Amino acid sequence: MASIRSVFALKNSAKLALSARSMSSHPLAGLLGKLNHVAIATPDLKKSSDFYKNLGAKVSEAVPQPEHGVYTVFVELPNSKIELLHPFGEKSPIQAFLNKNKDGGMHHICIEVRDIQEAVSAVRSKGIRTLGEKTKIGAHGKHVMFLHPKD
Amino acid sequence: MASIRSVFALKNSAKLALSARSMSSHPLAGLLGKLNHVAIATPDLKKSSDFYKNLGAKVSEAVPQPEHGVYTVFVELPNSKIELLHPFGEKSPIQAFLNKNKDGGMHHICIEVRDIQEAVSAVRSKGIRTLGEKTKIGAHGKHVMFLHPKD
Repeated sequence: MASIRSVFALKNSAKLALSARSMSSHPLAGLLGKLNHVAIATPDLKKSSDFYKNLGAKVSEAVPQPEHGVYTVFVELPNSKIELLHPFGEKSPIQAFLNKNKDGGMHHICIEVRDIQEAVSAVRSKGIRTLGEKTKIGAHGKHVMFLHPKD
Repeated sequence: MASIRSVFALKNSAKLALSARSMSSHPLAGLLGKLNHVAIATPDLKKSSDFYKNLGAKVSEAVPQPEHGVYTVFVELPNSKIELLHPFGEKSPIQAFLNKNKDGGMHHICIEVRDIQEAVSAVRSKGIRTLGEKTKIGAHGKHVMFLHPKD
């Protein structure tokens, strides 16, 4: 029994060591952080908010974000958030998405990064297009960069 | 100074108490749990895997899931996961999605619940359609129920 236990321990250790090495050896290891939120565009903000409220979730009021052309509602989950988006004003950036997806749908995911300039350089070096040249300030006062959905 | 501090303390306490009360008074408070994963369907599993690998993320190998008609790749983020999906076999449930979305896209989000029967009853009572009558066993051996995307 003692020798079998040793073999198991060795296997596990070897596996863990390999994982740790392959992670730390990547020059960008640790660049990606938490999934900050999943954004869902909706044609009916009240109906979508009520869906989560009816399931007992903590749901914020609708907040107009004139500089982004959207209303936002945040649904709090224990480890992340769902951001409900609805057009605000004439030139909302999500109107085209809703025209194409009448019932709404998932619009983007937002992943936190250690250093946004490092992340932008990394994706561009692989031919991934960014929407805009420079980062913008998002709804929560942090720098954001959207990536091209086709990439 | 002492009285100003007291006012601030009172304001904060009142706000917290109100939040706690409004949460606990909902019969389903606590039903929704963590955002388990965001699933993204992709026409090119290697390209999508490489996108996250190139950003230093921990990315699993592609695993065929014959009983679900998909290959899955998991991208680990500190608080959640991204599940990359690619069709497996002739009758993959995500083939129609990829036919409609040639470049792939977000397919579903998976939210953990305290009690799946309670959650299914709650959504059905509000007229939300479920895909199938009974829960199924998902890729990770847990009960899952998909909700109708139009609802």
